[in-house]
Amino acid sequence: MSDSAKPDSYDVLAVAPHPDDLEILCGGTLAKLVKQGYKVGIIDLTSGEPTPRGSLEIRAREAEKAREILNVPMRINLDLPNRILMDEPANRFKLATLFRRYRPQIVIGSAGRTPAASPDHHQGHLLIEAARFYSQLTKWDDQFEGTAPYRVPHLVYAPFPFEAEQRSWQGTFIIDISDTFEQKMQAIQTYESQFDLGRFEKVAHFIRCVNGATGARCGY
Amino acid sequence: MSDSAKPDSYDVLAVAPHPDDLEILCGGTLAKLVKQGYKVGIIDLTSGEPTPRGSLEIRAREAEKAREILNVPMRINLDLPNRILMDEPANRFKLATLFRRYRPQIVIGSAGRTPAASPDHHQGHLLIEAARFYSQLTKWDDQFEGTAPYRVPHLVYAPFPFEAEQRSWQGTFIIDISDTFEQKMQAIQTYESQFDLGRFEKVAHFIRCVNGATGARCGY
Amino acid sequence: MSDSAKPDSYDVLAVAPHPDDLEILCGGTLAKLVKQGYKVGIIDLTSGEPTPRGSLEIRAREAEKAREILNVPMRINLDLPNRILMDEPANRFKLATLFRRYRPQIVIGSAGRTPAASPDHHQGHLLIEAARFYSQLTKWDDQFEGTAPYRVPHLVYAPFPFEAEQRSWQGTFIIDISDTFEQKMQAIQTYESQFDLGRFEKVAHFIRCVNGATGARCGY
Amino acid sequence: MSDSAKPDSYDVLAVAPHPDDLEILCGGTLAKLVKQGYKVGIIDLTSGEPTPRGSLEIRAREAEKAREILNVPMRINLDLPNRILMDEPANRFKLATLFRRYRPQIVIGSAGRTPAASPDHHQGHLLIEAARFYSQLTKWDDQFEGTAPYRVPHLVYAPFPFEAEQRSWQGTFIIDISDTFEQKMQAIQTYESQFDLGRFEKVAHFIRCVNGATGARCGY
Amino acid sequence: MSDSAKPDSYDVLAVAPHPDDLEILCGGTLAKLVKQGYKVGIIDLTSGEPTPRGSLEIRAREAEKAREILNVPMRINLDLPNRILMDEPANRFKLATLFRRYRPQIVIGSAGRTPAASPDHHQGHLLIEAARFYSQLTKWDDQFEGTAPYRVPHLVYAPFPFEAEQRSWQGTFIIDISDTFEQKMQAIQTYESQFDLGRFEKVAHFIRCVNGATGARCGY
Amino acid sequence: MSDSAKPDSYDVLAVAPHPDDLEILCGGTLAKLVKQGYKVGIIDLTSGEPTPRGSLEIRAREAEKAREILNVPMRINLDLPNRILMDEPANRFKLATLFRRYRPQIVIGSAGRTPAASPDHHQGHLLIEAARFYSQLTKWDDQFEGTAPYRVPHLVYAPFPFEAEQRSWQGTFIIDISDTFEQKMQAIQTYESQFDLGRFEKVAHFIRCVNGATGARCGY
Repeated sequence: MSDSAKPDSYDVLAVAPHPDDLEILCGGTLAKLVKQGYKVGIIDLTSGEPTPRGSLEIRAREAEKAREILNVPMRINLDLPNRILMDEPANRFKLATLFRRYRPQIVIGSAGRTPAASPDHHQGHLLIEAARFYSQLTKWDDQFEGTAPYRVPHLVYAPFPFEAEQRSWQGTFIIDISDTFEQKMQAIQTYESQFDLGRFEKVAHFIRCVNGATGARCGY
Repeated sequence: MSDSAKPDSYDVLAVAPHPDDLEILCGGTLAKLVKQGYKVGIIDLTSGEPTPRGSLEIRAREAEKAREILNVPMRINLDLPNRILMDEPANRFKLATLFRRYRPQIVIGSAGRTPAASPDHHQGHLLIEAARFYSQLTKWDDQFEGTAPYRVPHLVYAPFPFEAEQRSWQGTFIIDISDTFEQKMQAIQTYESQFDLGRFEKVAHFIRCVNGATGARCGY
Repeated sequence: MSDSAKPDSYDVLAVAPHPDDLEILCGGTLAKLVKQGYKVGIIDLTSGEPTPRGSLEIRAREAEKAREILNVPMRINLDLPNRILMDEPANRFKLATLFRRYRPQIVIGSAGRTPAASPDHHQGHLLIEAARFYSQLTKWDDQFEGTAPYRVPHLVYAPFPFEAEQRSWQGTFIIDISDTFEQKMQAIQTYESQFDLGRFEKVAHFIRCVNGATGARCGY
Repeated sequence: MSDSAKPDSYDVLAVAPHPDDLEILCGGTLAKLVKQGYKVGIIDLTSGEPTPRGSLEIRAREAEKAREILNVPMRINLDLPNRILMDEPANRFKLATLFRRYRPQIVIGSAGRTPAASPDHHQGHLLIEAARFYSQLTKWDDQFEGTAPYRVPHLVYAPFPFEAEQRSWQGTFIIDISDTFEQKMQAIQTYESQFDLGRFEKVAHFIRCVNGATGARCGY
Repeated sequence: MSDSAKPDSYDVLAVAPHPDDLEILCGGTLAKLVKQGYKVGIIDLTSGEPTPRGSLEIRAREAEKAREILNVPMRINLDLPNRILMDEPANRFKLATLFRRYRPQIVIGSAGRTPAASPDHHQGHLLIEAARFYSQLTKWDDQFEGTAPYRVPHLVYAPFPFEAEQRSWQGTFIIDISDTFEQKMQAIQTYESQFDLGRFEKVAHFIRCVNGATGARCGY
Repeated sequence: MSDSAKPDSYDVLAVAPHPDDLEILCGGTLAKLVKQGYKVGIIDLTSGEPTPRGSLEIRAREAEKAREILNVPMRINLDLPNRILMDEPANRFKLATLFRRYRPQIVIGSAGRTPAASPDHHQGHLLIEAARFYSQLTKWDDQFEGTAPYRVPHLVYAPFPFEAEQRSWQGTFIIDISDTFEQKMQAIQTYESQFDLGRFEKVAHFIRCVNGATGARCGY
């Protein structure tokens, strides 16, 4: 299905600040893309730690387990600083280097400003856009570990479901994840350090409703 | 709880074009208001008939049964023409007459243009606004069966969950209907002529998700 | 200042549903345009009556007095039905006939939907736009009392200061009426049938604030 | 290419108030759809006459010639009243009857309010939406000349390129009409009664630029 | 009235970049909250100096005097750099430390981008949001002078009355400050270094109008 | 035509991140302003290099040639770092110093976030706004090479024609550049290092269409 020129090219790279962001935002879509034969990779910008019940080791183990559930072959942690992530040149270089190396057809990036949650989300959004632009720039290879310029054809947003203002802009396309929804929920559930049983039930309810309402608009 | 001046005044009158609109849009809220001691009435603008599996008799029976489930003491059908409802003076007079007679503190009106569903929805929205304005006008009592002018203090919208454009304006307050949600669903289910089992399941899924996602934004 | 071709042409015709609408919306601007030498006319679509304290005679007398205060040379009442004004062909013909007869360079039309006030406002808005378009149509002179087609070059909106939604669109130009503001307030005050002293003070406070806030954005 | 069930079903019906509206709004798309093998029909709601240089006969001849240039096999004029088109039940019945008879997979409808041009545009927009909804209603066949109910799966808007407000909502998909653009321009040019040479050049410049700018956003 | 658990908890902390910002944006609300018995504190992010007629000493003295007029018991200056305020981790730590120490139920933060005024406003907005999020984070106490994590339940915006775009989003609730308005104006007037008599009159006119227009929408 | 107080004052300074940005965004307007007798200057924030086919020398030569075609008397390169331009104090000081030195009546600044192109555009936008504000600040002359404070009366945006969201905000005034359009295109064409023949044709088509569509809305 993939028609990428180089053997190590990826069809899709999904990027977000913290392990578990992508599972929540588009875990069903990632599992579905894998199922359809696409080559998919996950990039976590930071470790997501510390958190009250997590640790670097626990979170990494959970992320690995979630990757297995989604059948995604590659997951990379870029190890940028959690909680103080910034859209600054050094960080752009690091992420763009991965884009140059894995040459994705599509980048799925988490997006949106979340005034009541981590400022990493907004900074990560800007960082992904800038890194995608940097990826194609020439005469700058030293900043990208010698990788060759590569133009990412498509950038798709996976928006955080918290509005910064009293309106919401709905996505212009929506994936039917009916057949991978449970896989998504399992992947999220692996983050036991983040979601103890009570909290998981609450989050699961929220995701079930938001995903259901979105899909229902399309008749899924 | 009600501090209306006259014994036959209502705290809340909810108005929409077709029997089952209000059940779907704000059935849980109506049941909750009744539970809290408010005096609530329902006005259906039209019979909602004909429909493939309904008839005037069946639909009226269903509406009555739904009223009982929600414990709403009064339900009036204004008998304006279904499918060709128009915001025109004669119809405004009829609805305003009810506002003058029942003197509600709050009118809850269905609202919004639904480009892919009945044009009655948009016309009904305009009609409710105009009737509310007419209700307070003086020197015009002959148009309102001799009822006295009455100014409706509050108009609240219950918007149809179909966007006319690619944005949505979220309500500015949201009622927690956790404790009346099932009552709402039962009220909707009474409309067997509208929702056979397969269709009810689909509609129920949609409502459960949309209501859940809305409530989840507030932590319900 | 006017460069209209025909001696009876007007520079500006201002149109709104009820006598006192234009005074409130743009009375200062009208007075200022007159002061600057422009030929200005006012068209009231309806009598604005009945109202609790007014009558046809009283309201007409007030409108005439307000016209004098603003120094506007012509004021026409089109006598369409108050409260049930509709944007329908017969009404469009009547208003367009005035546009053809007085050939204004600019039409200032009241604009906007006011969900909590008269539906005449929205219908009047649509009616003004349609009449302006009709004014230029050929081969239809019988509908316009034999007047010749005339294309109105400019249509400017004077929006009602009540938002239909939770946003407001600010005008793209704003007139400094510092030197005609008091004239405007006097013109409004002539409508004693509409505004007894208590109500006038409230309305005056509102207008003073809204006009002040608008002007202050421009440094006036 | 068409998978419509009945032999006389259409893949696409395009609807707009006046002959030449569809040519300007989506003539290239219609020609392209025909070229791709789809069965396409055009419905003009009114004659578009009178106009300064046109007549019923001339306009009909031009419309027929434009149809030939676009290779569209069917063009129907519904003969509703030009200039005073209204979204009212009788007109909805007439248009819905055509939808029931020709059973299109997609209706392309002109859309939008044009405050500085014909009010028919806005009324036509509402009328098309309502007729599409009516098309599927049961137990009402007498209003539709005995045709059977039919649900139109898709409604697509072809918006008039005049904004009602100071923002524009861009379409969510755009057709590359590079290979049918000149066909579109020829179709428009057939309306000599509407566009004498000077005016055609101006309109052609406008369309060329608007279409080019739209396509350029997509790399066409 | 306050039900905060700890004796040194605050009901409300108001935060903005420069002394006099809060007086202008919500001085009446702060005075009113104090009057109603709430425990209120003010945090100025920077000294606001230098300015043409001010100095560190003068400005601090004015701020203290304004605090007295509003009857606010606590005012803290965080002493971040004026004019070059940035939403960066070190500054987030400092502000979050105050949130952890004073444990407010509500943070009122100045908000909005002011393209024609200080960039501190936008940076301050982002900084307040980030600090509020940081306040609740665990395992990071060293960055917050050893204070314990604290989750601020509510963040409310006090928007700068300058629009970044041609629309404005109106607040969803509005406080009636009729009875503290003059107190607010006095508090602002203490900033003689910022507002000499001529400028104060102009600012006072602006505030009076904007506040009046806002309140008038609610019938105040 | 210029009424600036000091002999070395400018009427207009146009600012953008990269040489060729201003040519594309408002080259026709700049040429026209010069033609009308205004004193115009161009400020490029960065060298715009490296690019695949350019070099510092080539790009500078092209920029000089474009300046000659537009007849603009002054063009300054501020030499901030290309590709990693940031809205930070040091850069604000540098740009504000030029505003203080050349005291423009109007600053035309490139504006907008371009998620699919250089992050310099968004940072440049913020930087221009901040520098304009800094320009007027007193008691800070050491940061501005001893230049005196100067308040720039007007800031006008030249927005990048790529929308960050699915809506576009149209400018509120539009300059007729019919008579300088070809000059603009020639100025752009000088950037042979950026636009080889194939690419220039594509860009020229895009600009011709976007400019034409914009002008056509005004009847140009």
